[in-house]
Amino acid sequence: MPTGEDLRSELRVVMVATRNPLNIGAAARAMANFGFSRLRVVNAYEVAFREARSAVGAAPLLQAAEEYTAVGEAVADCRLVVGTTSVGHRELQHTIRRLEYGARLILRALAQGPVALLFGSEKFGLSNDDLSHCHWLMRIPTVNQDLSMNLGQAVALCLYELARDPAAVKGPARATRRAPALAAETEQITALLLDILSRCGYTNPVTAVSTEEKVRRLVRRLEVVSRDAPVLLGMLRQILWKLEKEQ
Amino acid sequence: MPTGEDLRSELRVVMVATRNPLNIGAAARAMANFGFSRLRVVNAYEVAFREARSAVGAAPLLQAAEEYTAVGEAVADCRLVVGTTSVGHRELQHTIRRLEYGARLILRALAQGPVALLFGSEKFGLSNDDLSHCHWLMRIPTVNQDLSMNLGQAVALCLYELARDPAAVKGPARATRRAPALAAETEQITALLLDILSRCGYTNPVTAVSTEEKVRRLVRRLEVVSRDAPVLLGMLRQILWKLEKEQ
Repeated sequence: MPTGEDLRSELRVVMVATRNPLNIGAAARAMANFGFSRLRVVNAYEVAFREARSAVGAAPLLQAAEEYTAVGEAVADCRLVVGTTSVGHRELQHTIRRLEYGARLILRALAQGPVALLFGSEKFGLSNDDLSHCHWLMRIPTVNQDLSMNLGQAVALCLYELARDPAAVKGPARATRRAPALAAETEQITALLLDILSRCGYTNPVTAVSTEEKVRRLVRRLEVVSRDAPVLLGMLRQILWKLEKEQ
Repeated sequence: MPTGEDLRSELRVVMVATRNPLNIGAAARAMANFGFSRLRVVNAYEVAFREARSAVGAAPLLQAAEEYTAVGEAVADCRLVVGTTSVGHRELQHTIRRLEYGARLILRALAQGPVALLFGSEKFGLSNDDLSHCHWLMRIPTVNQDLSMNLGQAVALCLYELARDPAAVKGPARATRRAPALAAETEQITALLLDILSRCGYTNPVTAVSTEEKVRRLVRRLEVVSRDAPVLLGMLRQILWKLEKEQ
């Protein structure tokens, strides 16, 4: 991104499988309140979410929301993908960071390119499949981890924390190095690796779905940098070519 | 308050003239999320607010909410009364503090006794009469001051900021000095002063209401400490007695 720009333009707020359109409206309103603009909606339960009255002054932002049918597509142009969670009962294999610290890391990443911040459904949060697209998770530090947060309030809190320090949301003057790979590139690496594993008999058809999620998470933990992505892809394509030839 | 206790038990969240009961429920849920417990409701539009489904896991907190018909009564036992605002178009004669800084002051005040945090109605915020009971105002730093915040989100943000530093919400070990007067004492001073001013012909019947608000604000700005309250009350009673005798 150009230096000195407002980092907020690089954030994509991604609402996944939201049931109540009022919560999408509330998210849009909180975005307008704190200066964010890019809203993405994945598989909303109510298709008429663009009419949500709860958006109040944020109707244009809601009208411009981009719709997707898969998380992978909604985050493809991002270099960091962060999921949110407020409950602690699930066995999460991701690194979980408190909101204050996570927000600092997100601001640093925004200086290198787009970041996706994912919010799951009101009832179930993010699914295991959604989570497998995330590099790490951010937790709002509530006192009672069994009591989930209201979705609109959770969005407002995350955006407030990101915009809390006016100096931090302004882009840094210096150029950035070691930009992470795009989510699309990371997903390409994952897909190739899965294809290879399947051809090698590593993947058991019964557990294929959970293996896919495990592999996807593993690739995210590698934190591949942008310039390494084509190299890795080249290696994997070569392996795949070899396997196809052998059959 | 006893030393070393959790300061959160001393905060009273006061919802004034809330129209939508879902917002009272959302406030209760955010309170439960961040460890606050004392909810007060002044003149809610919908009497059935205790049934709000939006409270989710905070139903007991909502059931225990205290109802009032006047702001003065709802804040009577507090030593600091803070109003909230997210819009900037009104001519406010109060000191306005940004949320981060205001929250620090509130935490300091909580160590000395109960503090009331007031939230106005969805449409109009706090009225001038409500504001006249406040010592100062707290503003959530939104980017667009013409676009108000969702009420439930505003409550969540304020409580999050108050509970953000886990060390700060624990009471201080040392004893506190110079506790501010109770709001009930401050209001008694105001009432006596108004009575005196009226008997002196200072108050014009046409502008009586606005004079009352001005006097109420002025008395709050004095920040009377607890041990001075009886002294001031004694003085004012003496003046009143004299005026009554003269008539």
